[in-house]
Amino acid sequence: MVRWITLLTDFGHRDVYVGVMKGVIFSIYPQAQVIDLCHEIPPQDCRTASFQLLQAFPYFPKGTVHLVVVDPGVGTSRRAIALDFGNAYGVGPDNGIFSQVCDRYPPQRVVELTQPHFWRTPNPSATFHGRDIFAPVAAHLSRGVDLMALGEPLDPKVLVRLPDLGYESTPRGVRGSIQASDRFGNLITTLPAELLAKGYHWVEIQGQRIPIAKTKTYGDVPPHHLIALAGSHGFIEIAVNGGSAQRVLGCENGDPVWLMRRS
Amino acid sequence: MVRWITLLTDFGHRDVYVGVMKGVIFSIYPQAQVIDLCHEIPPQDCRTASFQLLQAFPYFPKGTVHLVVVDPGVGTSRRAIALDFGNAYGVGPDNGIFSQVCDRYPPQRVVELTQPHFWRTPNPSATFHGRDIFAPVAAHLSRGVDLMALGEPLDPKVLVRLPDLGYESTPRGVRGSIQASDRFGNLITTLPAELLAKGYHWVEIQGQRIPIAKTKTYGDVPPHHLIALAGSHGFIEIAVNGGSAQRVLGCENGDPVWLMRRS
Amino acid sequence: MVRWITLLTDFGHRDVYVGVMKGVIFSIYPQAQVIDLCHEIPPQDCRTASFQLLQAFPYFPKGTVHLVVVDPGVGTSRRAIALDFGNAYGVGPDNGIFSQVCDRYPPQRVVELTQPHFWRTPNPSATFHGRDIFAPVAAHLSRGVDLMALGEPLDPKVLVRLPDLGYESTPRGVRGSIQASDRFGNLITTLPAELLAKGYHWVEIQGQRIPIAKTKTYGDVPPHHLIALAGSHGFIEIAVNGGSAQRVLGCENGDPVWLMRRS
Repeated sequence: MVRWITLLTDFGHRDVYVGVMKGVIFSIYPQAQVIDLCHEIPPQDCRTASFQLLQAFPYFPKGTVHLVVVDPGVGTSRRAIALDFGNAYGVGPDNGIFSQVCDRYPPQRVVELTQPHFWRTPNPSATFHGRDIFAPVAAHLSRGVDLMALGEPLDPKVLVRLPDLGYESTPRGVRGSIQASDRFGNLITTLPAELLAKGYHWVEIQGQRIPIAKTKTYGDVPPHHLIALAGSHGFIEIAVNGGSAQRVLGCENGDPVWLMRRS
Repeated sequence: MVRWITLLTDFGHRDVYVGVMKGVIFSIYPQAQVIDLCHEIPPQDCRTASFQLLQAFPYFPKGTVHLVVVDPGVGTSRRAIALDFGNAYGVGPDNGIFSQVCDRYPPQRVVELTQPHFWRTPNPSATFHGRDIFAPVAAHLSRGVDLMALGEPLDPKVLVRLPDLGYESTPRGVRGSIQASDRFGNLITTLPAELLAKGYHWVEIQGQRIPIAKTKTYGDVPPHHLIALAGSHGFIEIAVNGGSAQRVLGCENGDPVWLMRRS
Repeated sequence: MVRWITLLTDFGHRDVYVGVMKGVIFSIYPQAQVIDLCHEIPPQDCRTASFQLLQAFPYFPKGTVHLVVVDPGVGTSRRAIALDFGNAYGVGPDNGIFSQVCDRYPPQRVVELTQPHFWRTPNPSATFHGRDIFAPVAAHLSRGVDLMALGEPLDPKVLVRLPDLGYESTPRGVRGSIQASDRFGNLITTLPAELLAKGYHWVEIQGQRIPIAKTKTYGDVPPHHLIALAGSHGFIEIAVNGGSAQRVLGCENGDPVWLMRRS
């Protein structure tokens, strides 16, 4: 049986931290299959980690362990946790990085990682729990250790949650915000793509009206024009055909966006 | 039997798009071995993708599937294709990214991907065919599905080709151009390295005469001097010993370069 | 039996050089497991390669082959070597990149790579020994070829060593220097972390006195304050809680640092 472990961190690519975690994983479980999700999360940005994990979560084989190490509170009293989602597991600090995944795929069981038997050492470094606690625990989970053996059960309700960005209906239209951008400069909103089927006429951002794609593709508008469409992640996305909406609009995460009808 | 899938994209490293494609591949074919070729192709730059694929193509085991997703026309009427090169396969959009490989290693069979049975879903996202069409097709090819099952046969002659950069003999010398640069600032020309054996005396670029390496190494000139030599990819390359030719010369892709004889 | 090969290079991520080395490895040894340690070593920076290899070295399974290609002298008369450390192997150019690992884990046997039978070709490219010599040799070592078959025995004493950065006791305190920084802006000194147990009171850099962490974590000081603590790599590290010490202090590698007592 093949078992996967994904890695999502803010460690970047200029250091060997990610490689070290892999060495620790393979030392415990030589048959593990490790997949890099992303290591360029901005340093200590739990919000972006939570968003990226949600984008990737549904696409992995049953039993995959998602190891997330974005950990501004490493070494402090913040909890270390492991989560059982039924079809997948999560391992990482309890700081909100699992928020959006937990909203959509409620965990069945959660434990606080208090059992040093499954760590690399009972005296972990105070600054690299990825190496000394989280990677070893992910390797043990992946090789078949039961979640409950890893520590004390936790009520999922006590987990740290990031504030819900969400969206709301208002007299003016549906109000959401920009929650992320990607390498192509596409702006990903908090508005669910399903809303596009409900007869809205444009998306408004910074006072600009952006047309909604009829054929669902970037090619629906001429090159260098703005367009709003259903993104591959299930949210409404603002893009420029052959260009970067982020560069054209100069937006930042958190900027408000409206889905509107002709009145 | 082990089968490899290589990935070449313009997805970069700040998003989870590449990781998602891997999740889709392993969900279909758990025994797949996936190798990252490069994900830093400049966004939507089919020319660079074609060049990089050519550099890597000859070095992989028999049966490797090269999955290339640089796809400015995603969701439009551009074709999705799979190619059989005899010793290797290609999967990706038909937009020229296979041009240089096809010139040197003519494909034996090509199909247009019209058979949704081998996609992740019959209703693919209009903006992420890498996840919904190309990665699944590559996984099925890798696990042994016959190419012809994936869609309708296509005459290789109808494939989109990028304009040939090439080189030409002129009274002044052999004229080529810069087709790429690498991280070290080495400038890779379109001039085949074999020409160096034919008694030329220097390479000229921007009016500067650059000596040809006698011992074939960067160390043939003193530190910080320019040198022309046979690059590892089979083209003449302009380099600075211990430095960056790109920084010294300020060149761009497409700039002309001459291989010349003392007259 | 599973065998790992790690890769540490200055090839970056914008070219296919790393992917090509993997293709060569898998062509020789299909069962190899390849782990990326880091490819963002600054071009030709042997000092940083040596430091990063030392950080990662102890965390890999027995028998791992560490393939290091930071090779400013490629194609010149610099030696190509393989090293047997007992529990691990090293393969790469003899230019100091193995210095710090050799200091801490003396190699038992070293050979100069003179046996072209284990290369990709007896006529290697003069500019890409990673592809034509080092990757093939690492693959053969990994699949079980004896080190002594790869070339001529070398006395470890003749290997190129980088100058020792080290530290020294002075009347003023223990003097070391900054040897590296990481993505988070943490400054890693040459001072061994064990010294922190010996009753020192602060670390001084650029005339600033930086407190030593009592609880060993970044959270020991308020957000945005400087702190000195035992880093996960075993050296004293200067950090900013929730920020970047490198940005705050504007330090460079080589800058002096002092471990001091109240006098």
